[in-house]
Parts: sequence; C-alpha cells; structure tokens
Amino acid sequence: MTKRSYAILGTGAIGGLYGARLHAAGFPVRFLLHRDYDHVREHGLRVDSIWGDLHLRDAEIYRDVAQMPPSDVTIVALKTTQNEQLAELLPPLVGDRGFVLVLQNGLGVEDEIARMIGDRVLGGLCFTCSNKIAPGHIHHLDEGKIAIGDFRPDGQPSGITDRLDAIATDLETAGIPIDRQADLILARWKKLMWNIPFNGLSAILNAKTDALVSDSATRTLAIALMQEIRTAAAAVDRQIPADFIDTMLAATDAMRPYLTSMKLDLDCDRPLEVEAIFGHPLRVAAAAGVTMPQTTTLYHQLKFLDARRLPSS
Amino acid sequence: MTKRSYAILGTGAIGGLYGARLHAAGFPVRFLLHRDYDHVREHGLRVDSIWGDLHLRDAEIYRDVAQMPPSDVTIVALKTTQNEQLAELLPPLVGDRGFVLVLQNGLGVEDEIARMIGDRVLGGLCFTCSNKIAPGHIHHLDEGKIAIGDFRPDGQPSGITDRLDAIATDLETAGIPIDRQADLILARWKKLMWNIPFNGLSAILNAKTDALVSDSATRTLAIALMQEIRTAAAAVDRQIPADFIDTMLAATDAMRPYLTSMKLDLDCDRPLEVEAIFGHPLRVAAAAGVTMPQTTTLYHQLKFLDARRLPSS
Repeated sequence: MTKRSYAILGTGAIGGLYGARLHAAGFPVRFLLHRDYDHVREHGLRVDSIWGDLHLRDAEIYRDVAQMPPSDVTIVALKTTQNEQLAELLPPLVGDRGFVLVLQNGLGVEDEIARMIGDRVLGGLCFTCSNKIAPGHIHHLDEGKIAIGDFRPDGQPSGITDRLDAIATDLETAGIPIDRQADLILARWKKLMWNIPFNGLSAILNAKTDALVSDSATRTLAIALMQEIRTAAAAVDRQIPADFIDTMLAATDAMRPYLTSMKLDLDCDRPLEVEAIFGHPLRVAAAAGVTMPQTTTLYHQLKFLDARRLPSS
Repeated sequence: MTKRSYAILGTGAIGGLYGARLHAAGFPVRFLLHRDYDHVREHGLRVDSIWGDLHLRDAEIYRDVAQMPPSDVTIVALKTTQNEQLAELLPPLVGDRGFVLVLQNGLGVEDEIARMIGDRVLGGLCFTCSNKIAPGHIHHLDEGKIAIGDFRPDGQPSGITDRLDAIATDLETAGIPIDRQADLILARWKKLMWNIPFNGLSAILNAKTDALVSDSATRTLAIALMQEIRTAAAAVDRQIPADFIDTMLAATDAMRPYLTSMKLDLDCDRPLEVEAIFGHPLRVAAAAGVTMPQTTTLYHQLKFLDARRLPSS
C-alpha cells in the first residue's frame, strides 16, 4: 500500500518537527516555506530533538503553494494569526479527497476550514515544547504528544473514526506519541484550561509559568479563570471534572520555568493568538449564554498589548 | 482668634504641597520628615507650583514624632502602604481634641483611624498632579482641588458639618480649591471609578492614560470596570449616575498623557496601594453581596506585580 502523502503549511517549531519525523519515516512530505526557503534549499532542514536529531538535506520544499501537488493530508501548523491565508492556500492542496489536520490552539479553526473544503478536517493539540531557533533550525526540547480528534460540523463528538485512526497510525509510525480523542471540542476546551490563564497572564504580567503558579494571587486568579472555562464548556455540553484544575496546577508546578508561546510572540513583536485562544471561546460562551468576566479582562488587556506591538516586518 | 495648627505626616507630593500653602498663609504647620530631614533643614522645602513657587526656609520640621506638639489638625498624606505606622504616630499628635484629615485614595482608612483616636476624622480626595522630584523638592504640575467630607462611623453621609467647614475654610484661606462633600463615602467610590481602571491598567499594561483611553479594548474594559464599581457602590447605598462613566472618560480623553501614581510606584520599586484602592473596596462589596470579577482580576495581577517588586530600600 502506498504511504499517505503530507503537506506541511508552516514549517516552524511544530510543522518542522512533525514534518521531519514523517519524512524520516518514509512518508512523502512537502514543506511550504516562505522566508527560510533559500536557507533550507542550501543547508537543509535541521531538527534537534529529544527524540533524536534529524537533518533533512533532501526534503521536498516549495516556496509557492501553486507548485505543490495535492497531498493526502495537509497539516496546518501556521500561527492562527495567519489563518486568513488558508482560504487561498488550502483548496488546491487538499483537492477533492484530501484531509486537513489542524495543529493549532484555540477554538473554531476546524469550522472555518470546513467552510472552505467540506468536513474533511481533523484537529490536533500539541503538548510540545519546541522553538524555531534559526532559519530552518528547530529545537524540540521537551514533551511532544499530539491529542487528535475528528471534526463534525454539528459540534457533536465524532468518536474514534477510521480516518482519525489512519492518520494517528501514520504519526505513530513516525515515532510521535498520539492520544486519540473521541471528542475534539472537549479536548480543545481542556487545553484552553491551561492556555487561557498561563499564556494570557505570562504575556500580560511578563512572567514565566513558575512565577505565576507559585504566587498565591496569580494561582488564585488562574483557578478562577479555569472555573470560568469549565462553566463555559459545560454550557456547550462539555463536562470537565473539577479536579482537572488540580491536574493542570500540579502539571504546571512540575514544569521547569517556561516562557509561553504568547509571551515569546509578544517579546518578538509577533501577532498574539488572541482571537483563537480568547476571542472565539468568549463568543462561543456568549452564544451559549455564559459570560466570562475574568477571561474577558485578559482578552481586552491582550488586545491592547497586541495593538501596541510594532508593525511586524 | 488663633489660627488652627496643622501637622503634616508625609511631606511628599501631597503633604508638602498643601502644608507649604498653609504655612505661607500663616498657619502654624509642623512637618514630619524622614529621609529628607537633613536636606530640608539645610536647604528648606521647595514647592514649584502652578499656584506660585514657595521656598520655606523657616519651616517647623521634625524628624521624631515624639518631639512634635499636638496639633489641631493632623493631615495624613503618607502612602496607604505606610499606614501600619499610624497607630503609633497619630495618638500623641492628635491628643484629646485634635482632628485628622486623611488625604489618601481608596476606602476604609477613616474607619481604621477612628478605631485609634475616635471619630474625629475627615477625609479628602486630591485631584492633584504633583510629584516629589528631589529631596525636599515638590513639583505641582496641574489641578489641585481637594474634595473633603466628614466621617461617620455608621457609614452614613455626614452632611456639611461645622468641623468640615472650618477646615475647608482654612484650606481655602491658603488658596487651595475645595469641594465640600456631604457624603465622603460616595466621593471615595466616585474617585475609585477612575483609580481602579486607570491606576490598575497603567501599572499592569505599562501604559499612560491616553493610550488606555484611546484603545478600544482597554476603553471597553475601563467601562466594564466602572460598571462593576457603580454596582458595588449601589450595594452600599451610594448611587453613581450612569453618565458619570462618560464624564470620567471625557475627562481622561482631555488629559495630557499621564503616568498614574501606581505606575510611578511600580517603576520606582515602591509598594503599590493595592489594598486601599482594590482590596478594601472588593471586601466591602463582597460583604454587601456583590462580586466584582473584573476588578478582582486586576487586584490579583497587581498583587503579583507588587510581590515581585524588589525589596524597597
């Protein structure tokens, strides 16, 4: 049986890492590159990883999406702030029978993509500590599991579908730890339980996770934010057990001091993923009749910080 | 008739300015100084002011409160973060018949002081742009009105009492614009309508008032915070009209870019007035059955920033 082909949109910390693993496992992988194209064509794509270092000198790379053939699976690993490009990029890559796997934080992206290509969309949440440290050079420091779930336009849990299992198996073949999720939306709300307090507060208060979780005021605030998220999730029929808050706090206590992606984006004058992680969940909650005043406070603070950012180059 | 005597606790931006005006108007004024004592003894107290510059070479200054005679009125112009000193400082200064005028932001200080010396307490809110720019050197840049109200231990409005009118008249004699307030608690809640959003957000977001009021996200957030404050004030029988929000916004729109006192305190590694401006109002509201989730968010953020501050010298 022919191996499924993969396209990688966004060859950065996430797309570069997972694309390189799939390539090394023998899957045909096409990487879309923008600024790093010339560098990677000359020097290859380097991934330093706790799973073993890779240096792809023969990667199939593209600068122009129009040159890329349709692939069986297109992995969207752009920042959500670049998603306005998807309406143009995705349809030719996906063709009539391909699938999209969205590896992004937040809520709502699968719905957007389903409106572009139909419901051949899956979503994944990366529990991965990885950074792009130089052009064509990824550093994967810790963790790396992906929680993958299938998408249903009606918002109901999909269960473990065949297509989910097939893509998950490919990724496992490439050595990537996978959690198959019967309910993608629940998985996304659970990830928000961490991302909203810790991404938000680390950017607003210029702090690492260890400082936020060990200070009694911000720990109390994180708990209150998580309670709001649980209430909002319950309003869309996703029950998150109360002790999941303790699980998140204990996991954060155990982490080494960590600059979140949103704090890094702020420090590097990159757009913040405010709408995916805050704005969209707030709108979903509001549509279900739930206000989230503390989350709303962080949302407006982050919008202010994002608007004050220098125009990015 | 002998002029009333005044003691100034906290010869800084506020105490220095108003004490110097009273002194220049012929009132006996005793200034308590700490770090600046030697400088002022040698060089005098300088106040550069839009009301005219003053240079007091003959001011009655003290380093030790035990040397100060009781005064008719003791003006408390310390930062609220230094209020733990009041139980020791105040009783000998006030004696059996003196009054205290508290020139501080926030809520609750008059109650504390009444427990020390009885209910001979009044409160004033300064609408004053003044900074201490060097030892013994105050710069009064703009505004300067004081809204003064009398205190009642039962929390009811006092009306314009004789003692309030007498002290207000002294201050007016010294050229200080005064608003006599029939309801000190209402005046304090109204001042919180500005201090909570603009002191809080300027410190948390490292921003001046003009940036906060002109950005649509933080303007929206400021309005939401003011709504919470109105609701809390109403729960303790203080009605603030809805259009007072517009008044505050318009006043802030008209201000020149302004670093709030809390932002300055943060920048100078000084303790933040978190409890007076946030903690106490939150507890008063909670006791009246009102939660203030957005204000609570700022409170916890400020507590985090205050705890992270370097120990002050």
